[in-house]
Amino acid sequence: MKLKTILKKAFLLVGFFGLLATSAIAQFQQDPVVSPEIHDDGSVTFRIMADTADSVKISGSWMQGFGAAEHLEIGEKGIWELTISDLKPDFYNYSYNVDGVRTIDPHNPWVIRDVRNTFSAFILPGKESENVQLSDQKNGTIHEIWYPSPTLNMDQRRMKVYLPPNYNESDEDYPVLYLLHGGGGDENAWTELGFADRIMDNLIHSGKAEPMIVVMTNGNPNQTSAWHVAPGHQPARETDSPNPMATERFEESLVADVIPFIESNYRIKSGKENRAVTGLSMGGWQTQKLSLKHPDVFDYYGVMSMGIIEETQFGMDAQAHLELTNQNISDLKESGYQLYWIACGTDDFLFESVNNMREVLDSHDFDYTYRETDGGHTWDRWRLYLSEFAPMLFR
Amino acid sequence: MKLKTILKKAFLLVGFFGLLATSAIAQFQQDPVVSPEIHDDGSVTFRIMADTADSVKISGSWMQGFGAAEHLEIGEKGIWELTISDLKPDFYNYSYNVDGVRTIDPHNPWVIRDVRNTFSAFILPGKESENVQLSDQKNGTIHEIWYPSPTLNMDQRRMKVYLPPNYNESDEDYPVLYLLHGGGGDENAWTELGFADRIMDNLIHSGKAEPMIVVMTNGNPNQTSAWHVAPGHQPARETDSPNPMATERFEESLVADVIPFIESNYRIKSGKENRAVTGLSMGGWQTQKLSLKHPDVFDYYGVMSMGIIEETQFGMDAQAHLELTNQNISDLKESGYQLYWIACGTDDFLFESVNNMREVLDSHDFDYTYRETDGGHTWDRWRLYLSEFAPMLFR
Repeated sequence: MKLKTILKKAFLLVGFFGLLATSAIAQFQQDPVVSPEIHDDGSVTFRIMADTADSVKISGSWMQGFGAAEHLEIGEKGIWELTISDLKPDFYNYSYNVDGVRTIDPHNPWVIRDVRNTFSAFILPGKESENVQLSDQKNGTIHEIWYPSPTLNMDQRRMKVYLPPNYNESDEDYPVLYLLHGGGGDENAWTELGFADRIMDNLIHSGKAEPMIVVMTNGNPNQTSAWHVAPGHQPARETDSPNPMATERFEESLVADVIPFIESNYRIKSGKENRAVTGLSMGGWQTQKLSLKHPDVFDYYGVMSMGIIEETQFGMDAQAHLELTNQNISDLKESGYQLYWIACGTDDFLFESVNNMREVLDSHDFDYTYRETDGGHTWDRWRLYLSEFAPMLFR
Repeated sequence: MKLKTILKKAFLLVGFFGLLATSAIAQFQQDPVVSPEIHDDGSVTFRIMADTADSVKISGSWMQGFGAAEHLEIGEKGIWELTISDLKPDFYNYSYNVDGVRTIDPHNPWVIRDVRNTFSAFILPGKESENVQLSDQKNGTIHEIWYPSPTLNMDQRRMKVYLPPNYNESDEDYPVLYLLHGGGGDENAWTELGFADRIMDNLIHSGKAEPMIVVMTNGNPNQTSAWHVAPGHQPARETDSPNPMATERFEESLVADVIPFIESNYRIKSGKENRAVTGLSMGGWQTQKLSLKHPDVFDYYGVMSMGIIEETQFGMDAQAHLELTNQNISDLKESGYQLYWIACGTDDFLFESVNNMREVLDSHDFDYTYRETDGGHTWDRWRLYLSEFAPMLFR
C-alpha cells in the first residue's frame, strides 16, 4: 500500500471510531514505543521518543530520597531507554524529566494524580502485589456520593463509599471502616493511590477480613471535593495550603455529618463496636483527635505514620494536642476500645513523632499495639498497613 | 530565615502532610507558574517552565484540523507563555509539545485520558458552559459496579450508573437511558469527557429533563473495563484494535445481560416506553443495530455522528448492515417507537454516512428527527447532543 493510502485509511479508521480529531491518528495505530515494558524476569524497561532532547531522566516511587533520578540512554530512532531490575512486585509510579521539563510517560495511558502532581503508573505483577490486583472473584462496588455537611456549612461534599462484594445480593448489615487520607490528599486518594477497594476485595475473598463498608471522604474542611471535580466550587487557591486541614472541623463533621448520613443510607450495624477509623499522616492526626475528643464513637483506631510533633509551625497546635492527650487518655481508657494500632516505618521522617506518642501513651499505661516496619512516608507503607489493619477489625 | 532553615521547614511541612517523598516539596509550595490562568475577560494564558527548551507548542481541543498547534513565546525566568482569546465558554483540553516531546501541562493538576492519550483540562466558565459545571443543587450519584456478562463469557464487566439527585430519598421508579461511547472509549468516557452526570443534574434541576437513570457500560466486547482499571485482566494489547468493537456481541450483551441486571438492581419503570438508547460514532452504529435487531426493547433512539458507511475495511460489515436496514425497518416501524433522533455536524467526516442513512430511511418513509449542527466529530458536539436528546425522553 502506498503511504497516502495507508494514511487515508488510518484517518478514516480513527475518525470513524469517534475520537478527538486532533489526537486521533496516534491513538489507534500501535504505538511503536512500548513503555513501560514488563519482562518475564520482572525487569522493567522505560522508554520515551525524544529525538531532539539532550537529557532524559526518570524519577520513580521505588527510588530513595528527594529528587532521586536515573538517566535514560538514547538508542535507535530517538528512543531513550532504561531497564530497571530487582523491583519487588508492587504498584509504582514515575515521571520523566526531558531537558529540565517534568513530564509523564507519553506512551503509557495510565496516569495518576497525587496532590497537584501527575505520574505514570504500572503494577509489577507477582505474589507481593496480589493485594492491589483486581480479584478474579466478584468485586465490590464504589459509590460516588454527595452528602450534606451542616458542620462545615456546605450543602454538599463528595465521598466515596466501598461496598463489599455481596452487599447488593444480601440483606445483611455491615460494620464500617472510616478511612482517612493524608494532607493534600482527597476522597480519591485511597482508591487511586491506596487501592483500598482491591485490597478489601482480596482480604474479604480470602477470609482474612470481615466484609465491611469503607467510607472515604474528603478530610480537608475547606474543600467540597477533590479540587478538579468542582473547580468553580472550591475556595481560592491561596487557601489550599495545609493549615485549614489541621483544624478539628473535619473531625467534627465526620462525627456529626458523615456517620449519620452513612448509617441512614446503608445497611449498617450500629454501635461503636461496629466502627473503625484509620488514617495516614494528617489522617493519623485526625484519628488521634477522634479517639481523644470522641471516645464513644469508635472501637478500633489505626494511626499510620503519625505521632505527636513538638513543632507548632504547621498551624496544628501540637502543644494543645499534647495537653489534650494527657487529659483525655483516661476518658478513652474508661470508655474502652478493642484496638489502638500504631504503625510507622523506621525511615519515616515522622518516626520520632511516633516515639513521642508512644512515650506519652506508655506514661499513662495505655494499651496499644505497635507495628514497626521498614520504609518511609509513602503509599506502599499505607497499602501494607491497611492490609494488616483491616483483618483485625470486627472479629 | 536562612535558606537551610527554610528548606528544613519546607521539608517538615511537606513530609508532615503525607506526600510521596520524591515529589513532596513542589507540591505544597505555591507553584510559581500558574497555568492555565483564566482572566476576567475570558482569555486564557497557558504557561510552562522550560528554561532549556528550544521550542514549545500547544495543541488544544478548540483548534481546527489534525496536528494544529500554536507556538508559545519564552519570557522571564524560562517561562513560556501564550494567551488565547475569543474562546467560547466550554470544557477544553490541551497538551504541550516541548522540543518534539508531547506532554501535559505540568502546572495543571487536572488531567483527563481519551483512549490512550492524556490531556490537561480546564473549564472556561460562562453561560454556554453551565451544563458542564457542577450544579449548586443536590448532585446525582455515580455507582461503579461490576456485573456478570454470560453473553460475553465474562464473570464481571465494569459499568457506571448515574442515579438522579433524589433517587436515594424517594421510593419512585425511574426510566433508563443507556448511553454508549465511541470507538476506543470505555465506561469512563461519558463522565470524564462527556460530563453526562453534570449535564443530567443540570437538566433535571431546571425541569428540562425528567429524572432518569443513566447507564454507561463498556461497549468494547473484548474488554472487561477501561484498560487501566484491570491491566492484568484484559486481552493482549494486539487485540485492542477497533475491529472486535464492531461485532454485534456488545449489543447482544446489552440486551441479555445489562438491562436485566439494571432492572433487578435498581428501582426501574419497566417496558420499552421507559428505555432509551443513544451513542456517538461506534455507539451510534450500535444504537442503529439495536433498533434493527431488537425493535421491542427501546422506545427512544439517538444516533450521534454516525450513519451508514460504504467501506467495509473497518471489520464492520457495512453491506450487511445496509441489507439489515432494508429488511428490518419494517419490523421497527411495526413495533413502533417514540423518537428516532439523528444528529451530526456538517464538518464531521462521517457527515456523508449520515446522509446515506437518511436516504435509506427516507426511501422507507421512516419517521425520524434530524438535527444538523456545525462542528465535527468531537466531544463538544456529543455533550450538546446529550443536552438536546435527554429532554425529549419519557415525556
